[in-house]
Amino acid sequence: MIFTSEIIAGLEKRYRTALINSLSGFKSANLVGTCDAEKNTNLALVSSVVHIGANPPLLGMIMRPNTVPRDSLENILATQFYTLNAVHEGIYKQAHQTSARYDRKVSEFEAVGLTPLWHSSFFAPFVKESSIQIGLQLRENHELAINHTILIIGEIIEAHIPDNLLTKSGYVAIEQAETVTISSLEAYHSTNTLSHLPYAKPFQTNKSSHRSDKADPNKT
Amino acid sequence: MIFTSEIIAGLEKRYRTALINSLSGFKSANLVGTCDAEKNTNLALVSSVVHIGANPPLLGMIMRPNTVPRDSLENILATQFYTLNAVHEGIYKQAHQTSARYDRKVSEFEAVGLTPLWHSSFFAPFVKESSIQIGLQLRENHELAINHTILIIGEIIEAHIPDNLLTKSGYVAIEQAETVTISSLEAYHSTNTLSHLPYAKPFQTNKSSHRSDKADPNKT
Repeated sequence: MIFTSEIIAGLEKRYRTALINSLSGFKSANLVGTCDAEKNTNLALVSSVVHIGANPPLLGMIMRPNTVPRDSLENILATQFYTLNAVHEGIYKQAHQTSARYDRKVSEFEAVGLTPLWHSSFFAPFVKESSIQIGLQLRENHELAINHTILIIGEIIEAHIPDNLLTKSGYVAIEQAETVTISSLEAYHSTNTLSHLPYAKPFQTNKSSHRSDKADPNKT
Repeated sequence: MIFTSEIIAGLEKRYRTALINSLSGFKSANLVGTCDAEKNTNLALVSSVVHIGANPPLLGMIMRPNTVPRDSLENILATQFYTLNAVHEGIYKQAHQTSARYDRKVSEFEAVGLTPLWHSSFFAPFVKESSIQIGLQLRENHELAINHTILIIGEIIEAHIPDNLLTKSGYVAIEQAETVTISSLEAYHSTNTLSHLPYAKPFQTNKSSHRSDKADPNKT
């Protein structure tokens, strides 16, 4: 099936939403924890967290001003602090439930049965049940002119990672943590490692007479 | 282990890169296909594609001007057109190999053994071996002041999706397509569906006397 611009524009709304949300591929699954100045907490599932840079350590996420994480967005802009907490198999149903349209005065922590955790002096609440907990400070935000979504960029101020997930190389075994991944808006997946590939270097093309078998592009 | 800002700043560079790249969670795996005005092709793996909106249909991706997909970025800015092609189990090693620092005049298609595919009048090359092929037109780009990476936003002009992956709801079965997901910079994973969850609605809290068993937050 070929979906052109015209066909996409004419699709029934929910169909189009499901379709287009499928096309980016697998998504990260994180809970964003925030609070207002009076420490009233909010919790929202985000599937748009993306790596921005390692030095300084930066994560980005896309938020829509007029949908559910609106309170979260307002809290981030007002307080400058928020947390990202990895969603694992044990909590993904609660995480999904945070996307319901609760009243502004309801804390999703309480509504879905997750526990706010306050680490020392960090301003925003972490999720106690989450294995990987990241505290961030807002550094930059961009409103996208084309649809008024907001790109939020935060610097990692503290990251709490269980020792058993940390490898010597710095790689964090997020699969071992049972971290889930999302497709479209509704499907949750566990993962199986296919392989760890080495840093890629240019290799001889198949003009090389030294290769008689099918070339493994990562064997340099 | 708690990584503070000070600890992160003092980490050995490769360790920090692996660590911080792990923290966003699972990443999408796509190949971006581009060409210059003379139709010289380029292909680059991107793990930063993110959903921006469904109407109009928009995808974003983060690119670094001074790393490998530089030619791709220049082609996108110059020609306005590019493709995103889902990476599946059958091609992930070749996809990873595109991240090697090939000479500017080398097409990664040829270097890694993937096939450029030209769909009718679309300006940029698709990847023939990819199951889900998306043609985009550049709509907006933002340079992030904090580290000079670029957010590229494109509108989906055409999407090629095999009929057997399309469901009635519009959800595309990207797991059935053997689409892979990436963690950090090096690890590739297949997936297993845990479940499809319904659109979340607020539910009664556990104050409800009608629930004697552990509440399923998605059973409203």
